[in-house]
Amino acid sequence: MLIETNQIEQHNQENLSAHQRKFKFITEDISNTEDIVEKLKVFQIAIPSWALGTGGTRFGRFSGPGEPGTLEQKIEDVGLLHKLNQSSGAISLHIPWDIPSDAEKIKALAAAHGLGFDAVNSNTFQDQKGQEHSYKFGSLHHVDPKVRKQAVDHNIEVIKHGVALGSKSLTVWLADGSSFPGQLNFREAFQNTLESLKEIYKHLPADWKMFVEYKGFEPNFYSTTIADWGQSLLLANKLGEKAYTLVDLGHHQPNVNIEQIVALLLMEGKLGGFHFNDSKYADDDLTAGAIKPYQLFLIFNELVDGMDAKGIDHATGLGWMIDASHNLKDPLVDLLQSVEAIKIAYAQALLVDRKALKEAQQANDVVKAQEILQDAFRTDVRSIVAESRLRAGAALDPVQLFRDLKVREKLTEERGAVSIATGL
Amino acid sequence: MLIETNQIEQHNQENLSAHQRKFKFITEDISNTEDIVEKLKVFQIAIPSWALGTGGTRFGRFSGPGEPGTLEQKIEDVGLLHKLNQSSGAISLHIPWDIPSDAEKIKALAAAHGLGFDAVNSNTFQDQKGQEHSYKFGSLHHVDPKVRKQAVDHNIEVIKHGVALGSKSLTVWLADGSSFPGQLNFREAFQNTLESLKEIYKHLPADWKMFVEYKGFEPNFYSTTIADWGQSLLLANKLGEKAYTLVDLGHHQPNVNIEQIVALLLMEGKLGGFHFNDSKYADDDLTAGAIKPYQLFLIFNELVDGMDAKGIDHATGLGWMIDASHNLKDPLVDLLQSVEAIKIAYAQALLVDRKALKEAQQANDVVKAQEILQDAFRTDVRSIVAESRLRAGAALDPVQLFRDLKVREKLTEERGAVSIATGL
Amino acid sequence: MLIETNQIEQHNQENLSAHQRKFKFITEDISNTEDIVEKLKVFQIAIPSWALGTGGTRFGRFSGPGEPGTLEQKIEDVGLLHKLNQSSGAISLHIPWDIPSDAEKIKALAAAHGLGFDAVNSNTFQDQKGQEHSYKFGSLHHVDPKVRKQAVDHNIEVIKHGVALGSKSLTVWLADGSSFPGQLNFREAFQNTLESLKEIYKHLPADWKMFVEYKGFEPNFYSTTIADWGQSLLLANKLGEKAYTLVDLGHHQPNVNIEQIVALLLMEGKLGGFHFNDSKYADDDLTAGAIKPYQLFLIFNELVDGMDAKGIDHATGLGWMIDASHNLKDPLVDLLQSVEAIKIAYAQALLVDRKALKEAQQANDVVKAQEILQDAFRTDVRSIVAESRLRAGAALDPVQLFRDLKVREKLTEERGAVSIATGL
Amino acid sequence: MLIETNQIEQHNQENLSAHQRKFKFITEDISNTEDIVEKLKVFQIAIPSWALGTGGTRFGRFSGPGEPGTLEQKIEDVGLLHKLNQSSGAISLHIPWDIPSDAEKIKALAAAHGLGFDAVNSNTFQDQKGQEHSYKFGSLHHVDPKVRKQAVDHNIEVIKHGVALGSKSLTVWLADGSSFPGQLNFREAFQNTLESLKEIYKHLPADWKMFVEYKGFEPNFYSTTIADWGQSLLLANKLGEKAYTLVDLGHHQPNVNIEQIVALLLMEGKLGGFHFNDSKYADDDLTAGAIKPYQLFLIFNELVDGMDAKGIDHATGLGWMIDASHNLKDPLVDLLQSVEAIKIAYAQALLVDRKALKEAQQANDVVKAQEILQDAFRTDVRSIVAESRLRAGAALDPVQLFRDLKVREKLTEERGAVSIATGL
Repeated sequence: MLIETNQIEQHNQENLSAHQRKFKFITEDISNTEDIVEKLKVFQIAIPSWALGTGGTRFGRFSGPGEPGTLEQKIEDVGLLHKLNQSSGAISLHIPWDIPSDAEKIKALAAAHGLGFDAVNSNTFQDQKGQEHSYKFGSLHHVDPKVRKQAVDHNIEVIKHGVALGSKSLTVWLADGSSFPGQLNFREAFQNTLESLKEIYKHLPADWKMFVEYKGFEPNFYSTTIADWGQSLLLANKLGEKAYTLVDLGHHQPNVNIEQIVALLLMEGKLGGFHFNDSKYADDDLTAGAIKPYQLFLIFNELVDGMDAKGIDHATGLGWMIDASHNLKDPLVDLLQSVEAIKIAYAQALLVDRKALKEAQQANDVVKAQEILQDAFRTDVRSIVAESRLRAGAALDPVQLFRDLKVREKLTEERGAVSIATGL
Repeated sequence: MLIETNQIEQHNQENLSAHQRKFKFITEDISNTEDIVEKLKVFQIAIPSWALGTGGTRFGRFSGPGEPGTLEQKIEDVGLLHKLNQSSGAISLHIPWDIPSDAEKIKALAAAHGLGFDAVNSNTFQDQKGQEHSYKFGSLHHVDPKVRKQAVDHNIEVIKHGVALGSKSLTVWLADGSSFPGQLNFREAFQNTLESLKEIYKHLPADWKMFVEYKGFEPNFYSTTIADWGQSLLLANKLGEKAYTLVDLGHHQPNVNIEQIVALLLMEGKLGGFHFNDSKYADDDLTAGAIKPYQLFLIFNELVDGMDAKGIDHATGLGWMIDASHNLKDPLVDLLQSVEAIKIAYAQALLVDRKALKEAQQANDVVKAQEILQDAFRTDVRSIVAESRLRAGAALDPVQLFRDLKVREKLTEERGAVSIATGL
Repeated sequence: MLIETNQIEQHNQENLSAHQRKFKFITEDISNTEDIVEKLKVFQIAIPSWALGTGGTRFGRFSGPGEPGTLEQKIEDVGLLHKLNQSSGAISLHIPWDIPSDAEKIKALAAAHGLGFDAVNSNTFQDQKGQEHSYKFGSLHHVDPKVRKQAVDHNIEVIKHGVALGSKSLTVWLADGSSFPGQLNFREAFQNTLESLKEIYKHLPADWKMFVEYKGFEPNFYSTTIADWGQSLLLANKLGEKAYTLVDLGHHQPNVNIEQIVALLLMEGKLGGFHFNDSKYADDDLTAGAIKPYQLFLIFNELVDGMDAKGIDHATGLGWMIDASHNLKDPLVDLLQSVEAIKIAYAQALLVDRKALKEAQQANDVVKAQEILQDAFRTDVRSIVAESRLRAGAALDPVQLFRDLKVREKLTEERGAVSIATGL
Repeated sequence: MLIETNQIEQHNQENLSAHQRKFKFITEDISNTEDIVEKLKVFQIAIPSWALGTGGTRFGRFSGPGEPGTLEQKIEDVGLLHKLNQSSGAISLHIPWDIPSDAEKIKALAAAHGLGFDAVNSNTFQDQKGQEHSYKFGSLHHVDPKVRKQAVDHNIEVIKHGVALGSKSLTVWLADGSSFPGQLNFREAFQNTLESLKEIYKHLPADWKMFVEYKGFEPNFYSTTIADWGQSLLLANKLGEKAYTLVDLGHHQPNVNIEQIVALLLMEGKLGGFHFNDSKYADDDLTAGAIKPYQLFLIFNELVDGMDAKGIDHATGLGWMIDASHNLKDPLVDLLQSVEAIKIAYAQALLVDRKALKEAQQANDVVKAQEILQDAFRTDVRSIVAESRLRAGAALDPVQLFRDLKVREKLTEERGAVSIATGL
């Protein structure tokens, strides 16, 4: 299905006066509303192809109706999101779940929806049918050079798909690790990983980035070979200037201060991008902002501060992507909620009075510093985010319009109730 | 395949003199070796039917060859374990993964292997084909009475299967919970769970126990309706004297002192049984004793102390079961390792000089108390455990014999390389 | 020093029009603003006497100037807070840090500031000069009946002080626990604690409550005898209807869902009260709402829902207290920030559309349920909280007025720069 | 007091035959006992001067009798330890708690006890009387260059004291951090720290090392400026080849795999040394091996493997030190227990069949790898450790001899019951 521009317009017309009252109110208190609105307008968060279906746990999966069964349908889904919010202008593909048989056709389809291609993702954490060597004991870190080579080749293949589609980055997430003490020689595993990544790096086009993702645990339960930001940064530094660390919010041990890590990676010029989600316990992959919205704000506070200090463009300088798993919600609505939460956090971070904050910090005025951040966070910026959508031609209330237009019902009609998306 | 008694005997003959040297050495230092050996000899740890195949994570599953494809083959597997260690004399079935079409036949088969039937386990955390109502939003706690009734009926059905097989307990593990704030009314969810359990409880035979298992999180990521021992105990107390709390070692938040919980549940007369496994991060379901062997010992230290104080028979008073998931190892070898680790911890706990410990505690002699426990833990009790196996007709070194007899290779020959066990 | 009513009035006059613009805006969107304002107006959060000085860590303490050196000065401090926000109308004393030599005089002084006396707190976690028996190895759980008796007697003494001042509850927080495996017999420690508490309970006046506080760890590092809500509830149930569980937000293991515990304790009629603070790692005792404001809101969401379901008066039904430690901030300003954060969370919880939430829960509409909570949380309710202060005769912006009036400077002038408050 | 050599000899004579029976038994199973005994014999673990008194928590301190009140008495205490175990041949001083007024005299005193001087430790986490600038808001990371200079100068002073005593390393542990979001500019704090460390580094003698310690939290509760190994390594790399990371076992977030960090730091040539202790919850500073002995073994397993791979001498290549806090035990006995636990773990690590482990790892034989490690860990190596003491002229059972000789009673007689050691 397609959402028509006039459907958007009609929805906006109906909600306009209520919106304008709120937006007018907030602009009276804020000096830089226009600047914020413009920044929000161009800010895009990529949608991973695997988030369009219902994710599961090891205990099972409760799929919903009308899930996209093909790459074309996934692009259609992201197209719907982007039409609704004008903030989801790119899709991130996962190989081999989304191998495009005809890259040009897929590119054209995406372009018709106003979509580009974000980072391509390799998969060496599962065995595919007919695969020669198993990844049961790892891939790029494997003791057997033949397995490493297979995994390297797969990544090179993924780069090729990405080049064909116009992607500019490769995200390498490795499940490689061990579940029992003794299983692994940590140093050798690290060195093997480094050598494998170097091979892949050689095949990276000049204008590409390589994102080295880290994760604390799962699916390995004793060690993970790229387990934290320190290990990822070590690899990125050894690889070269095109290699960066990618931060997934759910990939840390309990209590870790993620915003500090973000700040330091920016300082080092090695923050590549983000996988947004939220979690209470582990890598729960919940909707962004659903559990710890203040943490999300604090992270954006560091991002804005650090990117400005380094002269990095907010919209294009880093890779922004959602990586969540929608076990209980409609995946599309969940993604709309995630994007909204991310943009709220970003807007609040843009509200922070940086000059005053700097002064408070220089004076060790802890009370004042807290007040400045809380003042921004407690401000209701939803009308600012809505205004940025309005100006971009998106819906004032994407979730409401999704419901009103009965999007899921129509997709189910078109695709059937038992269509199941590839992914986790 | 079957392991013949003479194969055991031959293996023992070959290893006997080395064993006797060690056993003789240790007995010279310990006054109650005979008592310990006899206790170990009768101590049995039930094997869950789902642990006989390779478990997976949400990222995939790397199955091994020769896994049991039928209930009969699962019983055969446990029979092999029991033949090797004479400590795995019962199997715990999971309905609907293991519905016995002919209970009498299955009972006879188990008996032929010297096996009984431990707790039966219900499953209301997954949807089965053709099931009328979905458990996507819970089962016994569900807002819809029709879903609750379906789940209650399933549990009653499970009891019936258990009765037919000679089981004496029902384990209820509920995945029921919520993944997002607001999704659930906690009080109502608890009350619904209580009412549902009461219904099931009514159908419990007079000599049965109901084990109410708790778990901190997963597969729900914001709340779990029976999340900790306090919630389980609250339910067990409201249900009645046949209801007990079941402790799974991997179901706690980080840092929780499990041995204290065990002690208090014993004090309250409400400890029902155990699911043994080990973990570093979450519900990792690793081999018992693989990560925190001292914790396992400390738990057994409380078990021995508390059971003795309450006059509970070690072998029969509580339900002992392994609940692990063998993603990387041969499931059968892994179970042998788990049983061994559990028996070592039990033997060490039996070694503790309780009189001296009591004195140290009464004198607040912290140094002495630590010394007493460490003295037991640092003692190499493997020959005591081996002696108990020897006397029971089991193998001195079960894992070694498993390898020597090429058990997995033979099972693979018989069953094929792609046979996959039901389970997680 | 005293803050004069006309100073408040002048401050309010200066800030009135800005406030009214905001309050007017918010009332247009909310149907029950008046109800919320009235509830906020009567909501009081008690101030513990030990929070008026700068708390330290084991690594040291950096005291600030002008701290209250006597009980009279502590009452003066709380009087200042209450004058500023009209929400801190009670003080919670700690014995022996705050023994009133003349109770009537102290009562009169407090009354002159509009203050009452909240729960009295006993201290059996430190040794006082001249004390016969040491609490090094615990107090109410101690193996030696003489130590237990001394601790029981102290608690009875504390009750007497409380009676003289008009308190209506006793808070028992025990550091009792162990730092090494083996040190303690868990069951005996629990039983000793129970027996000791029973003794104290006998001396509780008919209209008093006993709050049994729990804490996961610190100052003991292996076990704590009342370590979690389950243990506290077990004790409270065995003690009787005047005994309740007290929840301190910082006393849980990582990741624990506190709001669920709150809901269940309310369900059981056993939630006694709260110690508010915030934390990222352990019992960090930071300003309420400084780290996890959404969690604070979710807790209030359960409080409002549960108290309404049980017919418990919001203002008087439970004990509300701050328990924080202001290592880096001016303690008074920090308390103002805590009270503000608590009232914001309470106001947001009052905003929740409970009827719609109930409907969403009954329909398992997870998206809608999340939207309802987030809608309340994202609303900027600060002007509602300010309005409640305005109507109560307090300052629109207490922290700002505190600064403008140079309160700390004046207190320092009066008391000196090196006055140090008793406490931690 | 002094322990006489003949007292040691008499004790050993009494315990000799029992020891020999055990040692003889174990040597029959192990091919390299002699090598292990020799390595254990020369392995020394430094004792920090602050561990000789009873440490406290923020809730109080329960000092014991006869604590050393002067530097001379502290050296006497370590002398006693070293006499008993011949494994505590160095003392690590803390400035300003242990400023030697006459370095030559102190050196001679230490030499008389067979002691050398390990790393010197600076203290910029507390304010000292008369200090010009406060460290309330940090030291080396402080926004004010004057505070940073004061802290740098203090470190240079500490180096001078160390040079005078013959130390060869400086340990820098910084409490610098923040307790509230917004308080700190993370990047600037890091840069200030780096610049300050560079200043100190300039004053480091050519044959010295600088140990940069990290810690996750406490005494700051929102961020710590050197919070994890990644941040420490980043600094060490920027500082130069004399700068190393120091690992304190209690300074990690929950669940972190410390042994992997150790392996990677060794790989990078940047592991400087260790602070041994144990913990269940946070930086609990308990006796080494008291809570997680298997983790301690796994760490030594990596140490042995990594040091051998790098050609690092076990005894002298890294800095080995205990850093614990003895709240409940006699500090001297506690240190004896810590040293014993460390040497047991080291001995077990030396037992590991590295060739077989390598083969198992290359074959991904997870079962075998686990067996190899568990086989070493389950071996009772206490008689090997005792033998190494016997050969070095130390006591077979130091704790027992400590008791028999009534060391504490005599120290108390000499020093009085109320002598309190400087420290935490």
